[in-house]
Amino acid sequence: MPAKPKILVLPQPGLYAELFSDAADAQLHSLGDVTRNSESRNWDSAELASKIGEYDIIMTGWGTPRFTDEVLAAAPNLKLIAHTAGSIKHMLPPPVFARGIAVTHAAGAIAPAVAELTILLILLSLRQVHKLDAMLKRGEPWDTVKNAVVGREIAGQRVGVVGAGYTGRQVIRLLQGLGAEVWVYDPYLDMERAAALGVRHSALDDIFAQCPIVTLQAPPTKETYRMVGAKQLALLQDGAVFVNTARSHLVDEEALLAELRKGRFQAALDVFDQEPLPEDSPFRTLDNVVITPHVAGHSAQARRRQGQEMVNEIARFLSGEPLHYPVTVEMLEIMA
Amino acid sequence: MPAKPKILVLPQPGLYAELFSDAADAQLHSLGDVTRNSESRNWDSAELASKIGEYDIIMTGWGTPRFTDEVLAAAPNLKLIAHTAGSIKHMLPPPVFARGIAVTHAAGAIAPAVAELTILLILLSLRQVHKLDAMLKRGEPWDTVKNAVVGREIAGQRVGVVGAGYTGRQVIRLLQGLGAEVWVYDPYLDMERAAALGVRHSALDDIFAQCPIVTLQAPPTKETYRMVGAKQLALLQDGAVFVNTARSHLVDEEALLAELRKGRFQAALDVFDQEPLPEDSPFRTLDNVVITPHVAGHSAQARRRQGQEMVNEIARFLSGEPLHYPVTVEMLEIMA
Repeated sequence: MPAKPKILVLPQPGLYAELFSDAADAQLHSLGDVTRNSESRNWDSAELASKIGEYDIIMTGWGTPRFTDEVLAAAPNLKLIAHTAGSIKHMLPPPVFARGIAVTHAAGAIAPAVAELTILLILLSLRQVHKLDAMLKRGEPWDTVKNAVVGREIAGQRVGVVGAGYTGRQVIRLLQGLGAEVWVYDPYLDMERAAALGVRHSALDDIFAQCPIVTLQAPPTKETYRMVGAKQLALLQDGAVFVNTARSHLVDEEALLAELRKGRFQAALDVFDQEPLPEDSPFRTLDNVVITPHVAGHSAQARRRQGQEMVNEIARFLSGEPLHYPVTVEMLEIMA
Repeated sequence: MPAKPKILVLPQPGLYAELFSDAADAQLHSLGDVTRNSESRNWDSAELASKIGEYDIIMTGWGTPRFTDEVLAAAPNLKLIAHTAGSIKHMLPPPVFARGIAVTHAAGAIAPAVAELTILLILLSLRQVHKLDAMLKRGEPWDTVKNAVVGREIAGQRVGVVGAGYTGRQVIRLLQGLGAEVWVYDPYLDMERAAALGVRHSALDDIFAQCPIVTLQAPPTKETYRMVGAKQLALLQDGAVFVNTARSHLVDEEALLAELRKGRFQAALDVFDQEPLPEDSPFRTLDNVVITPHVAGHSAQARRRQGQEMVNEIARFLSGEPLHYPVTVEMLEIMA
């Protein structure tokens, strides 16, 4: 590594300002010779290939391009990729790892924002405040609105969490703070760790049958593809709450739509097979579904953590310390 | 007390079914000779006076009438009033206590529902999910919606809680479970109890100036009347979140409206000076306010607790045990 490494930062100016506090920006500039994408758009892989030549370290982020063979061939000095977002596998094909390029990512910085949105969506589905507000705002009589919903509490309720990774564990902790009883399905969680988390280790179908609230927090892998299908959804109790702030990859979306059209349970969905969600998507018409535009991980605080954590990782890398959030080729399969 | 006391239950059939599980209903009937209001409406005081004569115990609830002098004069046997709701002082004038009639109430059973709605309203104000959902539902483009809001997390934020009674303490506990730093204003809270709660004991104006999130949980008393006025609201930070699930009595509503019209902060309000909220109320037109129809204490679970707790109180009273939730005339002044 040269004394003053060359660092290329791909997130465009608007996102850069959200990711990096003045202190993080100053720290980054103290670590090397920083070049930033100053255009208000993301480059594509061909543009990246044309610019990457001399850089030792690249900071990537939402919407930055895939490291194609062309990009890699053009980047003989590249030693570290620090990704200021969570999902990385779409961006990094195995040759990146074969080259020995170190990789780190900010999934851990995002997890708290996802966990909080998950809690919010559960509470909102239980109390239906969005409907009460909308009814009052469009002038419906007070008593009509007051009697429209009998809310439910989360305290004392059984909540099923599918997946106990970064985000799942934070969701579990918040649920426990609200007094819920947590059941978890995660084939990578052993009984001892389940006990340490204070959760009941459960089969997937038991979660759907026994928990009036179910939330998905699993990563998109071969094993989790469409793991929630018509069978599981049919097991959900009448009046249940089903939340997905993870990936639509986990759910058979057609089966979900079919069940939701029956009006049998509430759902809150942040993720969809087709994103952007088409303007004529049936999800936009369902009264028993709350939808958000894949923003679970988006918060002002999360962005600052994402930037700061990746600056910290670069600092560690340059001083020869181990990375805190290294990504290996073996991890790609079970990562979000 | 006679061997088989006569118990009159005022909540009408629809509410009765929500308040009492089959088990609670059976337990109540085992305690005495139960007569229920079988009409689908609440009686007024004159009707109650005409029916109350022989009863030893009365169960009251939302919308049941005031114990006027006429009612009391007609109720020579009355020994216990068990109120299946929270607020009781509007219903019970001091002569009730002067007569030595014991009083108990279910405020403690309602507090968890109020606390959860408070948490929901804070999280909703921080993430604006109701707006994202409404925008997507009315067909706005995905990216427009995605970029409409930069959400914020509650973890690590300073939250001011005004009032550390039944509900306030539960709100504090839930906030701490979500990782918030809690400041409390409550003149009845001493430093030692504040330390035991893990909160910072603060002045009212400091709460408004220093906390980006403020929630009111104080009771309506002479001291709390309009305690939050133009001065405090002007101290709120830009972008702050202000929640009132307690009483509009606490707030100068005109000053609040004036501040909200500036769009400087978010509010979520469950209570209003005029309830039912008029159909032309300006609160129904404000985009930076979430409104709900005084339902903070309403949940399916709360209602079951309200019924069960009051059946338990009657059982205690009849067996000579102390009540768990006695109301005294001295308490009326500082109660909700």
